[in-house]
Amino acid sequence: MIQGIGASAGIAMGKAFVLPNWEWDVPEQKIDVADLAKEFDRLYEGIKTSKFEIEQIKGELRDMVGTEESHIFDAHLAILDDPVFMNEVQGIIQRQYKVAEVAVKEAIDHFVTMFDLLDDEYMKERALDIKDVGNRLLKHLLGAPEITLPMDTQPFILVAKELSPSQLAHLNPNHVLGIVTLAGSTTSHSAIMARALGVPLVVGLDTKLEDPIQTGDMLIIDGSTGVVLIEPTEEVVDRYTRIQSVQLEKKKELHQLAGVSSVTPDGKAVQLAANISSLKELEVAKPVGAHGVGLFRTEFLYMDRIGFPGEEEQFEVYRSVAEKLGDHPVIIRTLDIGGDKQLDYFEIPEEENPFLGYRAIRISLDRKDLFKTQLRAILRASYYGQVKIMYPLISSVEEVQAAQALLGQAKEELRQEEHPFNENIEVGIMIEVPAAAMIADLLADEVDFFSIGTNDLVQFALAVDRMNDQIAHLYEPYHPAVLRLLKMTVDAAKRKGIHVGVCGEMAGDMRALPIWLGLDVDGLSMSSHAILQVKERLLCTRQEDSRSLLEELLACRTSDEIIKQLDSFKQQIDEQRQHTNLCERS
Amino acid sequence: MIQGIGASAGIAMGKAFVLPNWEWDVPEQKIDVADLAKEFDRLYEGIKTSKFEIEQIKGELRDMVGTEESHIFDAHLAILDDPVFMNEVQGIIQRQYKVAEVAVKEAIDHFVTMFDLLDDEYMKERALDIKDVGNRLLKHLLGAPEITLPMDTQPFILVAKELSPSQLAHLNPNHVLGIVTLAGSTTSHSAIMARALGVPLVVGLDTKLEDPIQTGDMLIIDGSTGVVLIEPTEEVVDRYTRIQSVQLEKKKELHQLAGVSSVTPDGKAVQLAANISSLKELEVAKPVGAHGVGLFRTEFLYMDRIGFPGEEEQFEVYRSVAEKLGDHPVIIRTLDIGGDKQLDYFEIPEEENPFLGYRAIRISLDRKDLFKTQLRAILRASYYGQVKIMYPLISSVEEVQAAQALLGQAKEELRQEEHPFNENIEVGIMIEVPAAAMIADLLADEVDFFSIGTNDLVQFALAVDRMNDQIAHLYEPYHPAVLRLLKMTVDAAKRKGIHVGVCGEMAGDMRALPIWLGLDVDGLSMSSHAILQVKERLLCTRQEDSRSLLEELLACRTSDEIIKQLDSFKQQIDEQRQHTNLCERS
Repeated sequence: MIQGIGASAGIAMGKAFVLPNWEWDVPEQKIDVADLAKEFDRLYEGIKTSKFEIEQIKGELRDMVGTEESHIFDAHLAILDDPVFMNEVQGIIQRQYKVAEVAVKEAIDHFVTMFDLLDDEYMKERALDIKDVGNRLLKHLLGAPEITLPMDTQPFILVAKELSPSQLAHLNPNHVLGIVTLAGSTTSHSAIMARALGVPLVVGLDTKLEDPIQTGDMLIIDGSTGVVLIEPTEEVVDRYTRIQSVQLEKKKELHQLAGVSSVTPDGKAVQLAANISSLKELEVAKPVGAHGVGLFRTEFLYMDRIGFPGEEEQFEVYRSVAEKLGDHPVIIRTLDIGGDKQLDYFEIPEEENPFLGYRAIRISLDRKDLFKTQLRAILRASYYGQVKIMYPLISSVEEVQAAQALLGQAKEELRQEEHPFNENIEVGIMIEVPAAAMIADLLADEVDFFSIGTNDLVQFALAVDRMNDQIAHLYEPYHPAVLRLLKMTVDAAKRKGIHVGVCGEMAGDMRALPIWLGLDVDGLSMSSHAILQVKERLLCTRQEDSRSLLEELLACRTSDEIIKQLDSFKQQIDEQRQHTNLCERS
Repeated sequence: MIQGIGASAGIAMGKAFVLPNWEWDVPEQKIDVADLAKEFDRLYEGIKTSKFEIEQIKGELRDMVGTEESHIFDAHLAILDDPVFMNEVQGIIQRQYKVAEVAVKEAIDHFVTMFDLLDDEYMKERALDIKDVGNRLLKHLLGAPEITLPMDTQPFILVAKELSPSQLAHLNPNHVLGIVTLAGSTTSHSAIMARALGVPLVVGLDTKLEDPIQTGDMLIIDGSTGVVLIEPTEEVVDRYTRIQSVQLEKKKELHQLAGVSSVTPDGKAVQLAANISSLKELEVAKPVGAHGVGLFRTEFLYMDRIGFPGEEEQFEVYRSVAEKLGDHPVIIRTLDIGGDKQLDYFEIPEEENPFLGYRAIRISLDRKDLFKTQLRAILRASYYGQVKIMYPLISSVEEVQAAQALLGQAKEELRQEEHPFNENIEVGIMIEVPAAAMIADLLADEVDFFSIGTNDLVQFALAVDRMNDQIAHLYEPYHPAVLRLLKMTVDAAKRKGIHVGVCGEMAGDMRALPIWLGLDVDGLSMSSHAILQVKERLLCTRQEDSRSLLEELLACRTSDEIIKQLDSFKQQIDEQRQHTNLCERS
C-alpha cells in the first residue's frame, strides 16, 4: 500500500498501465547562418500547428466537461505567445545556431528547472504547463507521433509520473478507470479536470521508488482517501468491491433523481437549470433533468473564428437550443466579452484593469451594430421555444433603457420584414455589479427577471480579483456584505414580483443552498455536473429551517462565523438523514 | 481679438513673451559598428539623467500644487520605460548605425506624426508627452541648455505653440501673468496644471496665422471666455481692469474667509480639512484656514527612494506635522501602495487587475514588519499633537481586528521601551470598498471614525476604472447606487455615534456639498485649493434645505435626474445671493 493524496473521489480497481514519459531524443544539431530564416520559419510553423491542436483539444474538452475547465488551455495558448519563453527559444537559435527542436528542449529544461527550484505549488503547475506545451511543440518539430494509450484493451488504471491537462483531455473515460500520478497536487489543472470528468485520481505518492508500479500490476485506488493498493489480497479486493458498489449505488440513486421534481420537504420548488456555452453541452444537461438553460454564454459562438458571426448563423444555434429544450426555457445572455475574455478579431485597447473596463453590455451599447445583430437572432429564435434575453454587467437604469430601446428597434425591423418572433419575450439582467444590487428595486421596474452573477458581484463588492493568487484568500463569497447585497437583490425582486435566479458559482455550491432557500430565490443555474447533487441536497433541506438559519447568518459579523453556521447546519441535516436514511420525495 | 478656448479662469494683462520652440538641430551622424555598445551606454546615461530630472520636477510640483497634479509626470517616466518607444530608438541605432540623438529625434517624429494622424484628443496628448520627454532626452544627449524664460524681467503673458507639463512646471507663477497656447485643449495635462496653479490660460486659438502674437505685444487674456486681445484700446483696457479688480476683490474676499468658522446659516458646523502628501504641503493648507489634515498620504514618504523609510525617519515627519498643526488634528493614513502606486524597491508581481489586487492594508497585513514600523512611528508622534490613525481599503471586520491587534503590540512595545504616546489615539478606517459601506454598522463598532474615500468607492460600486478612457463616461459619482452606499455609511456612523468624514474627490466638489450637508457628515477633507470656495458655498447653504433636497435625490432613478436636481438647487442659492449679496457669517 502506498499513501497518496486523494484528488478526485471514487474507487477504481484494475490493471495498471504505466504511461511512458513524453520525452524524445533530440540530437544536438547546428544550422548554417544562411538557414537562420528558414529555421525561424520552421519554429513559427510548429507554433501555429501546436496552437491549432490546443484549440482543438480545448474545443473537445468544452463539449465534454464544460467551459470553465476548457479554459485551462488558455494558459497553454498563452505560453506560445509568451515573449519570455519565446525569446529564450529564438535567442538559442539565433546566437548558438542550434536547430529549433534543440532550442525548444533547452528552453523547456531551463524554465522547468527554474520553476521547480522555487518550490511553490503555483510555480510547479506553471512548469508542468510549459513542459506540456513545449513537448507538443517538440512533437511537431520532430514530426513524432503523440504517445497514445492502449485503446482497444481492457479498461485500465493510468499511472504516470505526472499528467498534463492535454494528456488528460485525450483520455477516453470509458477506458480509464482511474489515475495515479507520482507528482501533482489536488489543486492542479489535471486534478480539476479529473473531478470534472468524474475519474478517480490519486496524486503525490509518498514513496521513494522511481517506478513503484509496473504495467500489469493489479491496483485499487481510492480517490477520497488517497490510498493506492498494489496486488491486494482477495480479502481487500472484496472489501473495496463492497465499498465501490455502495458508491455506485449512490451514484445510480443520484441519477434516478433526474426525473424527480426539485422541491424541498416543505414544498418550496426551485428550478435547477444548466449553464451552457454550446449546443453540444445540452447533451450533458438533458440526462440530469436540467430545467432548461439558465445561462447560455453566447460569447463562445464568437470565439475561435476570424470574424463576428452573422445573424443567420447565430439564429440557427439559438433556434436549435430552443427547439431541443421544448417547453423548458433558455436564457440567452448577450455577448459578454472583455475582461478576461477576448476575441482575436476584435481588439480592445490594453487596459490597466480589464475587469473594471470595456466589457459586456458596455461593448454592446457602444457597438450597436453587433448588438442589434445578436438581438435580431435571439428574437427570431424566440418563435421556436421558450427563449429569454439577458443583458450582462448592467450597472444603471439608463443602460437597461438603452438596451431595451435597441431591442424595440430590432422588433420593429422584424415586424417590417415579417419575421415571426415572440412579441412578449421576457428580458432580464445579470445582477453582478454592486451598484445593480443597490438599485435592484429600480431595475426591477425595467425587466422581467434577475439572475445574480455571484462571481463578479463578490469580486467587485470586496475589490478582490479572485484570479490573483496573492489575494485569493480575500475572495470570500460568504462575506456579510455579500449576504446583504444578495438579500437586497432578492427582496427587491420579490417585492416587485419578478423572477430571481442565481447563475454564478455559488448556485452550484452545496454550502450556499440554505442561503438560496432562505432568501426564497426561484431558480439556480449551474454546471450540469452539479445539478443532481444539489437536487439531492435540496430534497432534504427544509425552507423553513433555511429561513431561520439565514436570520442567524445575517447577524454574523465575519465570514468565519457564517461558514461555521452553514457547516453545522449541513451536519445537522446529515445526522437526520442517517436516521431516516432517505429524504421524502415528492 | 482672437477667440480661443478658456482653459483656466482669470484675467491677465501684460506684455507677451513668445516661447521659442524646444527644438534643436540634430546633425545626421553615423557611428562605427565597434562603437555600438558605447552609443547604447550614452543612450542609457541620457535616460537616467532625464528620469532623475523628471523626478525632481515632479517633486517640486508636488510641493507647489499637490500630489494629484504631480502624477502627470508618471506618464513621462513611463515613456522612458516604454518598450515600444525605446525599441524604436534602439532599433535605429543598431540597424542604421545612427547616433543616439538622431535615433531619438527620428523616434519622436515617428510617434508624434502617427499619434497626430489619429486625430484624437487623447492621442494628441500622448504625442505631446512623447515630444516633451523626447526633447528632454535630446537635451541631455546634446548637452544643450534648457530653454529658459526671462526671469528678472517684468511679469509677462507666456505665448507658445503648445506647452508641455514639464515646461509649465518650471514657470514661476510670480513672473507669469497668464498663458496662451495656439494648440491644446481644456482637458490637457497642462490645462489641469494651470488651473491648479491658478494661472489664467487660453488654448486652441482660432487663427490661421503661424505667429499671431509677437514678443512685446500688449495682451489681455480672459481664461473664462477664451478671449485674447492684442494691443487693445485704452477703453478696452479700462473695462478689463474693472473686471479684473472685481475678480481680485472676490479672491481677496475668499481669503478673508480663512479665519471664519465653517458653519451653515442654520448652524451645522463642518470641519474643512486638507489632504496632504508632504510636510511642505502644510504651507498651502495653513493660510486657507484648514481645520487640520483630514488625510495625510504617507505613501509619498516611501516614494522616490531606494528602500523603506525607518521608524525614526517616519517619526520625525509625523511629529513635525503634528506639532505644526497644534490643536488641529492630523489623520495619518497607513501605507496605501499597490494599485497605480508602486515603489521602485518593493516589487509587486504583475497583476491583471491591480485595482482589485495586492494593495494598501492587504500589503500591511501581509508585511507585518513594515506595518508595525509605521504604527510605532505614528504612535510616537501622537505624543506631540492631535494624531489619528487611519487604515485604507478595509473590507471586513477581520481586517480591522488584525490591524488593531498589531497596533496593540506596537503600543505594548513602546510601553516597555518607555516611549511616550497617546494611549487613547483615535483609529479610523477608509470606507472605499463597497463591502465596507454595506457593513458600516459592524465596522463602526470597531473604530472611532470613518472617512469615505469616494474615488475608489465609486469605481468598485460601478465596476468602472475611471482612468480607462474607453469607459470614463460610466464613472458617475452622482449615481443612485452611490448615494445609497453613502447614506448607509453615514447613517451607520451616526447611529453608532462615531465621527464620519469624506476625503475623496467629491469632498471638494461644490456640486456635492448639499449631499454632505443633507447626510450630516462631520468633516470634509480636500485639496487645500478647494477649501475656501467650499467654505464660501457652505456659508450660504442651509442644512435644512439640503436635507429636503437629499430626500428628493434619493428618490431619483438616474444620475441625470440627480445632477439636474443638484444644479437647480445651486441656481436657487445663487439667485438668493444676488438679493442678499452676502451670506450671513457667524
